[in-house]
Amino acid sequence: MQAQTVYGALHGLQTLSQLCQFNFSSRVIEILMTPWIINDQPRFSFRGLLIDTSRHYQPLPIIKNVIDSMAYAKLNVLHWHIVDTQSFPLEIPSYPKLWDGAYSTSERYTMADAAEIVSYAQKRGINVLAELDVPGHALSWGKGYPSLWPSKDCQEPLDVSNEFTFKVIDGILSDFSKVFKYKFVHLGGDEVNTSCWTLTPHVSKWLKEHSMNESQAYQYFVLQAQKIALLHGYEIVNWEETFNNFGNKLSPKTVVHNWLGGGVAQRVVAAGLRCIVSNQDKWYLDHLDTTWEQFYMNEPLTNITKSEQQKLVIGGEVCMWGETVDASDIQQTIWPRAAAAAERLWTPYDKLAKEAKQVTGRLAHFRCLLNQRGIAAAPLAADTPLTQPGRSAPLEPGSCYLQ
Amino acid sequence: MQAQTVYGALHGLQTLSQLCQFNFSSRVIEILMTPWIINDQPRFSFRGLLIDTSRHYQPLPIIKNVIDSMAYAKLNVLHWHIVDTQSFPLEIPSYPKLWDGAYSTSERYTMADAAEIVSYAQKRGINVLAELDVPGHALSWGKGYPSLWPSKDCQEPLDVSNEFTFKVIDGILSDFSKVFKYKFVHLGGDEVNTSCWTLTPHVSKWLKEHSMNESQAYQYFVLQAQKIALLHGYEIVNWEETFNNFGNKLSPKTVVHNWLGGGVAQRVVAAGLRCIVSNQDKWYLDHLDTTWEQFYMNEPLTNITKSEQQKLVIGGEVCMWGETVDASDIQQTIWPRAAAAAERLWTPYDKLAKEAKQVTGRLAHFRCLLNQRGIAAAPLAADTPLTQPGRSAPLEPGSCYLQ
Repeated sequence: MQAQTVYGALHGLQTLSQLCQFNFSSRVIEILMTPWIINDQPRFSFRGLLIDTSRHYQPLPIIKNVIDSMAYAKLNVLHWHIVDTQSFPLEIPSYPKLWDGAYSTSERYTMADAAEIVSYAQKRGINVLAELDVPGHALSWGKGYPSLWPSKDCQEPLDVSNEFTFKVIDGILSDFSKVFKYKFVHLGGDEVNTSCWTLTPHVSKWLKEHSMNESQAYQYFVLQAQKIALLHGYEIVNWEETFNNFGNKLSPKTVVHNWLGGGVAQRVVAAGLRCIVSNQDKWYLDHLDTTWEQFYMNEPLTNITKSEQQKLVIGGEVCMWGETVDASDIQQTIWPRAAAAAERLWTPYDKLAKEAKQVTGRLAHFRCLLNQRGIAAAPLAADTPLTQPGRSAPLEPGSCYLQ
Repeated sequence: MQAQTVYGALHGLQTLSQLCQFNFSSRVIEILMTPWIINDQPRFSFRGLLIDTSRHYQPLPIIKNVIDSMAYAKLNVLHWHIVDTQSFPLEIPSYPKLWDGAYSTSERYTMADAAEIVSYAQKRGINVLAELDVPGHALSWGKGYPSLWPSKDCQEPLDVSNEFTFKVIDGILSDFSKVFKYKFVHLGGDEVNTSCWTLTPHVSKWLKEHSMNESQAYQYFVLQAQKIALLHGYEIVNWEETFNNFGNKLSPKTVVHNWLGGGVAQRVVAAGLRCIVSNQDKWYLDHLDTTWEQFYMNEPLTNITKSEQQKLVIGGEVCMWGETVDASDIQQTIWPRAAAAAERLWTPYDKLAKEAKQVTGRLAHFRCLLNQRGIAAAPLAADTPLTQPGRSAPLEPGSCYLQ
């Protein structure tokens, strides 16, 4: 086996391990489909999965388990949406009261926990993309530091008029930079309802003094956060609303993270910025009725034809938002659908299946492999009914889970 | 504690067990809310859950686990949709080739297995309603007995023209009656596409000889199956299409099982028949986007005001169709949503919450109890976002699953 990087070698070993299977009758390990020559490399460099530890806390063993499963599917970025309105589970040494916003003292990560996750992921070829979502989705920050709220009655977004807000962001990113060594940090920027800023007298006064309306203040906030992140050596990912509202003001080091709908990637790369695709109608795992077939058929380069623009789409990410999942059901909700997207992100375009149904057999096989490796992936859903008598898939999920 | 039946006593003990909790600090068992007097009885006598072992096989320990969880929620009917088009997993001693239609030899239930399930359920106050869905949803029967198909090219519904078809049904119901002692058997009758009957020459000829069109033959089939079931001492449950098409011909011992939409129960009870409610837009667990709030708010007696008609709605049932679930995810998909329906079916109308959000706290608590008892119930979904700081629910799913 030859590889240009250690990660390439890891992926190669992963492939090899998936070509081996134990024959329970002969009690020998068989290697499938020999002889073979595999000349393989990923189509996209960014192949992500988002987890969200704010809506529900995920214990460390569960996160490690998710990382293991990602490696099996050759996903290579764990986008850790650490904090949101609901809770602030991470220790921030610079501002130690922030994790007062955790659900409870047992639902917290120390910085040592975070370092352990980063290290565990790195050994499996996976980068951790930490997210600090500002200025919206940040209500839980104020549990420990109420002055970050515009007021006690109007708690979101973070107070744009308060210098302390940006000091805290600087402190957090300073602490981040000691642990989260990936070149990118995610600064959020989505779904910002700025009405608290004009409704709160001292913020409204500040806006007038600085001749800003709400949307200008939103832009100001995002760009300030970007500056701080750049000073800590990060390149930046921001959700697409930032681009949609003031794309020409964003740092050229910004990667725009699509989630709202189609067509955004086209506009982002036409503007010369990089893009990650996660359109919610196709790649949101918390949309429980989205089928694996829809996951498979979502093509990141739709309507992007120029080679130099295609290169700006660095990849895509499936998103496991935390409202519906905790330790009880996260594996079943991520898999097998994330694997359909993983194939889309890895495989050369001309080798992808033209119709999802051609994938059924190998996805059922892969689901089976996950089960055998201790990942409780759910069965393939109903869209491809089994033909009876005889089964369409080489290894069917039901019997697979029995083994 | 006083109860009129042993099942009442079981339910009472269940309630008692749920009022006790172990205090991990003081290391004593505490009884909540004492002193109390509870005068309790179910609103509906039929409180069901459907499982489907044809689309995916469910191992015996999983079925027992489902039965355990039903008892915790005071559900009392396990509707076992044993057979369907996809597979025939049950041994039928009278026609031993029927289970050739099983997915594999390891995905079968012997009659002894079935008896074990019935006994296990009975000890927990739960009846097993076995379903033999005819004449549609029966393709797998023909794996062992191809003459049950109209032809090799047109395999559904069962051949109405063949006396052998009804002999097999008689044999199955005879075998059923030795194990499934509940007074009801479910004879299906849903989603019957009869086109194979006119497309197949020998069946088409038979129809002409008997002056039947396709819909008359469908009626004939269902009524023949009803007669056989009655001879074996069963009362009958049929899916609503039988009522919708020829309700006035059904045996008065029929319970009509609603699934398609609203308003059916009204018409059924107006016709003097009994009804079970399972409307698919509210009480189908395989509709993954249906929230627990929608499960809770589904009222079986909607628009049924006359007391004698209300009594004919004997209850309701939540349906866990098998396309999306096997051993990996069935618990997570059934719970907590089935518990919301269980409260609707148990609690007196005037004590039910008027708005689902009033239920959040106790449903989160119950989900926690399920977790503690080894049932991997999923967290409550996103429709009732947690208020931060502090939690709306007394025991939150996330931390609960950690314990």
